[in-house]
Amino acid sequence: MQDHDVVGIGNAIVDIIAHCDDAFLSRHDQRKGSMQLVDGATVARLYESMGPAVEISGGSVANTMVGIASLGGRAGFIGKTARDQFGGVFSHDIRSAGVTFTTPAAAEGSDPTGRCLILVTPDGQRTMNTFLGVSPQLGGGEIDAELIRSARIVYLEGYLFDRPEAKAAFRQAAEIAGRAKRQVALSLSDPFCVDRHRGEFLELIRGCVDILFANEAEVCSLFRANSFEEAASRAQANTKLAVLTRSEAGSVILSEGKSIAIAAAPVAKVVDTTGAGDLYAAGFLYGIATGRGVEVAGRLGSLAAAEIISHIGARPEVSLRELATARGLLE
Amino acid sequence: MQDHDVVGIGNAIVDIIAHCDDAFLSRHDQRKGSMQLVDGATVARLYESMGPAVEISGGSVANTMVGIASLGGRAGFIGKTARDQFGGVFSHDIRSAGVTFTTPAAAEGSDPTGRCLILVTPDGQRTMNTFLGVSPQLGGGEIDAELIRSARIVYLEGYLFDRPEAKAAFRQAAEIAGRAKRQVALSLSDPFCVDRHRGEFLELIRGCVDILFANEAEVCSLFRANSFEEAASRAQANTKLAVLTRSEAGSVILSEGKSIAIAAAPVAKVVDTTGAGDLYAAGFLYGIATGRGVEVAGRLGSLAAAEIISHIGARPEVSLRELATARGLLE
Repeated sequence: MQDHDVVGIGNAIVDIIAHCDDAFLSRHDQRKGSMQLVDGATVARLYESMGPAVEISGGSVANTMVGIASLGGRAGFIGKTARDQFGGVFSHDIRSAGVTFTTPAAAEGSDPTGRCLILVTPDGQRTMNTFLGVSPQLGGGEIDAELIRSARIVYLEGYLFDRPEAKAAFRQAAEIAGRAKRQVALSLSDPFCVDRHRGEFLELIRGCVDILFANEAEVCSLFRANSFEEAASRAQANTKLAVLTRSEAGSVILSEGKSIAIAAAPVAKVVDTTGAGDLYAAGFLYGIATGRGVEVAGRLGSLAAAEIISHIGARPEVSLRELATARGLLE
Repeated sequence: MQDHDVVGIGNAIVDIIAHCDDAFLSRHDQRKGSMQLVDGATVARLYESMGPAVEISGGSVANTMVGIASLGGRAGFIGKTARDQFGGVFSHDIRSAGVTFTTPAAAEGSDPTGRCLILVTPDGQRTMNTFLGVSPQLGGGEIDAELIRSARIVYLEGYLFDRPEAKAAFRQAAEIAGRAKRQVALSLSDPFCVDRHRGEFLELIRGCVDILFANEAEVCSLFRANSFEEAASRAQANTKLAVLTRSEAGSVILSEGKSIAIAAAPVAKVVDTTGAGDLYAAGFLYGIATGRGVEVAGRLGSLAAAEIISHIGARPEVSLRELATARGLLE
């Protein structure tokens, strides 16, 4: 098997994106900016009441892997789809973006491919309702040990913790990576996801995680901190390398006792914030996997995030490699 | 049943839209700007080789009906989907846009919902490969006579002529509309479609068509004309009302011996020309159905076309009503 820079494990999701106003969110008890897990009946009901949509492949870590490929990196993905049209869309899009994706689709008659209804308000904020479908049924047998060992960094999605089967697969992947002396990176995914699994996340982070990604709300939730400063100080003490993203306030990298602030890259108009964190992680992981310093890695992350929030959907619309080369970040 | 301004009959299609360069078109024997019909195996092969895509509901006349609803008109659509995920996407999108759509989906195990692979080159031109799937299996029983009689104008898609079952449904709808003294409008859809069915189209146009929509290539193909001027003169002699669209050169309306030129509405950047003709028809038909003159109708058409080519996909991203009101075209 060829070497990879990063292999990611996460939910395989197709995003269904529609515009709505704030009143629609209120009417449907949606907390703006959050992600909630919903069942098949709920997702169907909400879909019926929402406006015309666009379908684009998504999934947090899957978006990150596509971003790494767009930067010119070698990325792989492990995640579960069904043999349905959305599964076909997900598989096509990630493979055609240049990401190694070999996880077999579930047998006929399985739960459907996961989907996420994303409601985008005029301020560009996204509110997500995820129906995981077959995605958490990723079994131990589908954790491709050879693929994991082929990568410098294995990147794990916190969302996987929301279902027991996926959590077991997650732990198995972390162990394989650890034994092979690979770096393990973790995204906390969502403050409510952190709230549901705080103890286990903390144990993992102290045990086997080399690089932690979190946004302000997630890191505050993890350490039950009342301020970003308090959370950052706890993260500094409890992690080897932590990357904390703060939307338009940029990001902070905590490494070897130092704190490095990275400015957000400019963006003409924020259209849809979906995928900002995922693409930041793409830039950062690509930078680290290819031996660049944390500061360049952070600037690559900011640049990739700025591209993704300038349009609908969490997959890049232009070559991130060309973008980064034009800015002098890659040669 | 409530009254409708326009009821359209056409193929129910989900568009799968990807960017590509001119070299990709050459490698895959694609004639830029054209639409070709392909079978399931061909569409699967082309899909595999094309890049990451976005899925958005489409279908020529379906796009027009959504445009009419966006202008504040009452529109209905008749077209065939399968009970699959793309069928669900198509049905959701057209209904949530406010269009009456009651055609039952085909029974389980039918051919799949139609789809169209759209390749968009950097110049904004689109090249289409359509797999009709279950769409042409629209039967006589699905032509809802009450819905047709509820509308001031019935709008028919030339593409329906490409399969015998759909053609029969098309003729049946035209007869119902004629008996009910409704206006019948026809889109020629595509120059190659015209070439395949020239004789029958001419007979229809001379017989029962009140409003003909064609672009430059289509009207030249219809009359085997060597110049636009020649084709326009033949159209003037052979139709009651003809609307000829000429991309950035605007449009020409031929009515009662007169020829009225309408300028194209300005657009900052042409991103994707998919749906330009469909949305021009939306503005024009809405204007005529609501008793406005042909000149205002033409300007509504130009405005709707300009909106659609400024982004990916053939469904409006903003309220066309608000856009037209801001320009003083609607009150």
